[in-house]
Amino acid sequence: MIKILVDAMGGDNAPAATCEGAALALENDKELHLILTGRQAEIEKELAKYKYDKTRLEIVDCPDVIGMNDIPTEAIKRKQSSLIAAYWMLKKEEDICALVTAGSTGATIVGGQLILGRIRGIKRPALCPAIPNNRGGVTLLCDCGANAECKPVMLCQFAILASAYAEAGFGIKEPKVGLLSNGTEEHKGDPLHQETYACLSKMKGVNFVGNVEGRDIMLSECDVVVADGFSGNIALKSMEGCGKLVLGVIKKEFSATLSSKIGYLFMRKAIKRMRGQLDFEKFGGALLLGLKKVVVKSHGSSKAKTIAASIANAAAIYRGGLVPAVEKKLEGVDFAALIPEEE
Amino acid sequence: MIKILVDAMGGDNAPAATCEGAALALENDKELHLILTGRQAEIEKELAKYKYDKTRLEIVDCPDVIGMNDIPTEAIKRKQSSLIAAYWMLKKEEDICALVTAGSTGATIVGGQLILGRIRGIKRPALCPAIPNNRGGVTLLCDCGANAECKPVMLCQFAILASAYAEAGFGIKEPKVGLLSNGTEEHKGDPLHQETYACLSKMKGVNFVGNVEGRDIMLSECDVVVADGFSGNIALKSMEGCGKLVLGVIKKEFSATLSSKIGYLFMRKAIKRMRGQLDFEKFGGALLLGLKKVVVKSHGSSKAKTIAASIANAAAIYRGGLVPAVEKKLEGVDFAALIPEEE
Repeated sequence: MIKILVDAMGGDNAPAATCEGAALALENDKELHLILTGRQAEIEKELAKYKYDKTRLEIVDCPDVIGMNDIPTEAIKRKQSSLIAAYWMLKKEEDICALVTAGSTGATIVGGQLILGRIRGIKRPALCPAIPNNRGGVTLLCDCGANAECKPVMLCQFAILASAYAEAGFGIKEPKVGLLSNGTEEHKGDPLHQETYACLSKMKGVNFVGNVEGRDIMLSECDVVVADGFSGNIALKSMEGCGKLVLGVIKKEFSATLSSKIGYLFMRKAIKRMRGQLDFEKFGGALLLGLKKVVVKSHGSSKAKTIAASIANAAAIYRGGLVPAVEKKLEGVDFAALIPEEE
Repeated sequence: MIKILVDAMGGDNAPAATCEGAALALENDKELHLILTGRQAEIEKELAKYKYDKTRLEIVDCPDVIGMNDIPTEAIKRKQSSLIAAYWMLKKEEDICALVTAGSTGATIVGGQLILGRIRGIKRPALCPAIPNNRGGVTLLCDCGANAECKPVMLCQFAILASAYAEAGFGIKEPKVGLLSNGTEEHKGDPLHQETYACLSKMKGVNFVGNVEGRDIMLSECDVVVADGFSGNIALKSMEGCGKLVLGVIKKEFSATLSSKIGYLFMRKAIKRMRGQLDFEKFGGALLLGLKKVVVKSHGSSKAKTIAASIANAAAIYRGGLVPAVEKKLEGVDFAALIPEEE
């Protein structure tokens, strides 16, 4: 049995999407046991619409909800909220292995650090989504927003965290790791990235392949792209923006003339496959890496399918042994020796 | 008459693409007069393939060519090279108004700073491409690679430079300017971006609309997005990568089955229009802004059409009065008062 917490009130479409997603996830994975936190009456009303195994679902009543505009450091004091109550249970109850939320990113990060806690030795948690790439697989981009300001030791740890995720979550052996910079040459970037390059080149447990550019996130052999949270966030959202623009143009152009409308009828399947391949949410949200347990941050706009994918992702990553894999990799690296001034 | 220099040896496809592009540009604009720098014999051989008005084209023989891997600060000492000879002519001859090159970006930037020189008061030149957006127009992204390390005064000047470009090059009145950050809230980003936000809010001559995210480059109402050269470069290349991935997937999917092949026959025109709308090179390369004359850096992989577009772009921007517009905007701003510690 795998016990996973779901923040039933998190996200733009909660609790409808979270409840439907939870029911769907239970149906897809018979080993799952879900604990939904949130307003019990609302949750029960939503759940009544679906068939699911009631013996594998609990509800913990939490009257409070954290909004997208609440200040994270204030919000985590509200123990009656669905997200914070979930974090406290995740911390205290040993048999619960993961948390899935589509709620406030800021509160998820702050709560993860201050309530659940980091893996021993990890300086900062990092957000790591899986981006579709031209090999039909995914590239893990880490960090993409948890840390606007970074130091070399943090970037080196992001490489460890995302490498462990690639292994535990996607079964990739010795994942190739690139450092996101403004060119591929060793001297590129600012001092932060130059120092990080030097450290990654010497590090054990990380298969560093050098600097990569923005286009290499989707078009290279890299399994992991390490970034400071500022430029990682910009890269992620720039790709999302481009993807949305393209799908919008396709939609417009393909209904522009009678000829293209006829063509569309023949190509519906191809277009559906294409959309699937470009779906940033296919793998169910971003991991918040570096914490003592698995935490998955699903997109704020998540619908039921994405919530179900995020829950399945959390279960897969727990089964794959993410946290022990990170701990093992950390054992092999002496950060004090690698980056003396940082420790 | 508008006199423009073309670095005939710059780029992966030179001198074939540059010569064909030059002939094309002369055909399209009867006011143009082009001066091609490079190996005369090779240029004459290429030009012999095309019809053009020979009275409006000169060749200046330069035996040397700067390669993509040459160190820029070394390369600009080579006065016999097609790019550096062009820069010297641009500096010395008053009636020449612009330079177009598809050669080394680094040498173009260094040559611009050290030979041609900056507009009085401008700290650093910046690279500014025009990115297609969801309004069917373009968003100017400045800087996207000339300056990996920036200070607030530089970013504020990029706002002035790109605003002047939007007005002179695209006729946009009071262009809307956003600051690229990892979120739209005022406090987002590192100290560099927080300080820049404060300065831009107070600046005259710049219609600042606040922080924008990566997706807003292609999907917002902004005409100009100001970025430090590191994250601007990452944004640009992330979008390029996503665009290439999508076009690759479309190509694959649309020839995957008999049905989709039939559909393609009906949709050829729609797909062509779509490709056109997503073409990052449509507007002929990036401007190197902040210099005393118009310099256009065309993509290294430019073909004849793109070279011709870059030449047309240079002419349009000169006609629009870019440099005087920048000078006028600079007059209105007292940087010493705005950012005391920087001056």
